[in-house]
This record gives sequence, structure tokens and C-alpha cells, in this order.
Amino acid sequence: MRMAELSAESGVPVATVKYYLREGLLPPGERTSPNQARYSAAHVQRLRLIKALTEVGGLSLASVGAVLSAIDGDETPHRTMGVVQQELAGTPPKVSDEDAEWASGRLADLMRRHGWKVHPPEHRTMANLVAALATARELGQETLTERLEEYADLAMHVAELDVQVVARLTSIDNIIEAGLVATVLGDRIFAGLRHLAQEQVSRKVLGGG
Amino acid sequence: MRMAELSAESGVPVATVKYYLREGLLPPGERTSPNQARYSAAHVQRLRLIKALTEVGGLSLASVGAVLSAIDGDETPHRTMGVVQQELAGTPPKVSDEDAEWASGRLADLMRRHGWKVHPPEHRTMANLVAALATARELGQETLTERLEEYADLAMHVAELDVQVVARLTSIDNIIEAGLVATVLGDRIFAGLRHLAQEQVSRKVLGGG
Repeated sequence: MRMAELSAESGVPVATVKYYLREGLLPPGERTSPNQARYSAAHVQRLRLIKALTEVGGLSLASVGAVLSAIDGDETPHRTMGVVQQELAGTPPKVSDEDAEWASGRLADLMRRHGWKVHPPEHRTMANLVAALATARELGQETLTERLEEYADLAMHVAELDVQVVARLTSIDNIIEAGLVATVLGDRIFAGLRHLAQEQVSRKVLGGG
Repeated sequence: MRMAELSAESGVPVATVKYYLREGLLPPGERTSPNQARYSAAHVQRLRLIKALTEVGGLSLASVGAVLSAIDGDETPHRTMGVVQQELAGTPPKVSDEDAEWASGRLADLMRRHGWKVHPPEHRTMANLVAALATARELGQETLTERLEEYADLAMHVAELDVQVVARLTSIDNIIEAGLVATVLGDRIFAGLRHLAQEQVSRKVLGGG
């Protein structure tokens, strides 16, 4: 298909498509004349993926680039998903050393008890989690962290479902892309369901209106 | 305490504190002379809350303002949390009419089966959820949405835990603030735990490395 069709199919404006081509986020089409190229269904899918990562996932174009390089690289699916999760995690907020130390201990404790391991040990997901726990403590909301074991158990159930969803696909490319989509959209979908569910429970407990 | 101490206690720079005072995000201190004011522990807590909302929750200052007005207002806790969730949800991404219609039907179906109700019926959490489901479909990842019932069941368990955590606090102010903190930090903490758990499960299923 031509550029105009690619834009219409993917819902991404022509100027944006051209920008992604220049930035290397989208591979070049097959050149048919000095001024024209032909694009395929793979280009449409790649554009939709970029849209999902930026609009739903809230990723910067730099993060999208890092994620796509990982997908297109030769790493194992497991390592690729590691890169994806790093980029999704963003930069952890600043917290005081004392609160950070307390939160690290709390998390290490939890992981030991659940037999969870991470490689490399200090990755960004952990740094974010530590910062969030430290912030809860700073705000005097330790109650939230007292039930961390139960949250971890439920997170494990969700993760098992996530991996079942992803593992149903057979091709390696699909598994990685599905893993990416499952992570980005999955977080948003689960947060949305949780908020709706909170509304059901809180109406009963905290009183209506 | 004086401004310098308020800044040190909260970890928010003096210039930023002054900006928040001008913008009305932080209530004025008690004036002790034409050039000086005295601040209380409530000011420290409010600054920490603003920091958590912006740095961990990723909220804009405009959204923080809306959330704080809701907290300081006369609404019921349930309605206040509604405002909080609207602001946290952000603006839903654009999707095609066809996919949006499909996703709305899918969500309406789920909510009917679970007996979930929302007031007002079209709020932003729903709009975001619809957009995320529609994006999954657009990317050919309907597998994610096929297990929506199971995700909703798990979300209900998480929400029950959330409300138990919040309901343990007795004062109304604390309940609302705890609800806010639980929502903002709770989403981040759960997403972090889920990613760590995914890593445990996926290492076994997708192969190591």
C-alpha cells in the first residue's frame, strides 16, 4: 500500500508516519520509484503498536524506540520483556534515604518469603516499588504496606493469567509483541477494573451518594 | 515552623512551596509579621501529598488542584473518591468508532454479569477502559480481552483489600486522604508487584535467560 493508505489504515497522520520513518521507529517501505515506497500490513501493525505505547502506555518516543529495538533484536523473549518493563517503569521519584532503606528491607523480606528472584537484582521495577512504598510511609499510610503479602499473592494470580494469555500465541514475534501489549494495556485495563470494583465495594462500606 | 523548616521537613524546595502557596494548592500559614508566617504539621503533610500525586501518580498540577479541592470540599467520601478517580484516569486515547463500540459492549456485558454499577454512568475510568480494550482489539490481541471476566474477579479481590486498608482509619479526613494515597500509590505498587510476579512466571513458561 502507499503512504496515504498506510496513514488511513493505522489512524496515524502522514506527517507523523514520515517522522517515525526518519527517526527509525518504523522500518522503510519497499522503494518502487525515487519518490514512492510500498508499505505492508507489518507497517500498519507497527504504527498501531507505537500508538498504543504512546497514547495508552504514556511512553516517550525515546522509550518507544528502546522498546522496539529490543523487540527487533536477537534477545530471548524473557530478556526482551525485561527491557520493556524497564522502559515502562520510568524514573522512580525521590524519597528520603531512611524511608528508602525501610522500603527496600520490606520488599527484600517479601521477595524472600515468596521465593521471588530478579535479574539483574537492582532493576527499575524494584526501584519504583521501593519509592512507592517509601512514599506511603512518608505519608503515614503504612497500613497500605502492612497488607503487602496479600497484594503480592493477588499479583501472582494476575501474573499467572497474564502469562497464560501471552503463552497461547505460538510464534516468537507474536509472543513478544503480545507480552508488550499485555503489559502496557494490561496495567491500564487492570487499574480500570480495580477502580470500578473499588467503587462497588466502597459504596457499601464508606456510605453511598 | 518557619518556611525553611517546612521545606526541610517536606523535602520540597522553598521556591516550589511559595509557588504552591500562590497557586492555592497549599493553604496560607498563620501570619506572625508582615514578612513571616508560621506553618504546621498539616502543611508538611499536604506538601508530601502533592509530591506523591505529582511524582508517583504523574498528575499535572491542574489535576492535583482539582483533587485537593475535592478533598477540602463538603462532598461525601464516596463522591470525593469519584473526583479523585476521574483526575487519575486522565484523558482516554483515541480509537476508531467500530472498536470503541465493540469494547463498550464487552464492558457493559461484563458489568451486567458482575452486577457492577457506576454513577455517573459515563465516567472517565470507563472511557479509559473502553479505549484500552479497543486498542487491544485493534492490535489483534483479543486474547487479553477474552479473559476479562477472570481479571475482573481478581480486581474485585484487590478492591476488597483496598477498601479494608482504607476503612481501618477512623477519621473522615484520614479516610479520604488514605483513599487517595491508596489509589495513587496502590496502582503503582500493584503494577510493580505484578511485573515482578510476571518475571517469576514467565521465566518458567517462556524460557530462561
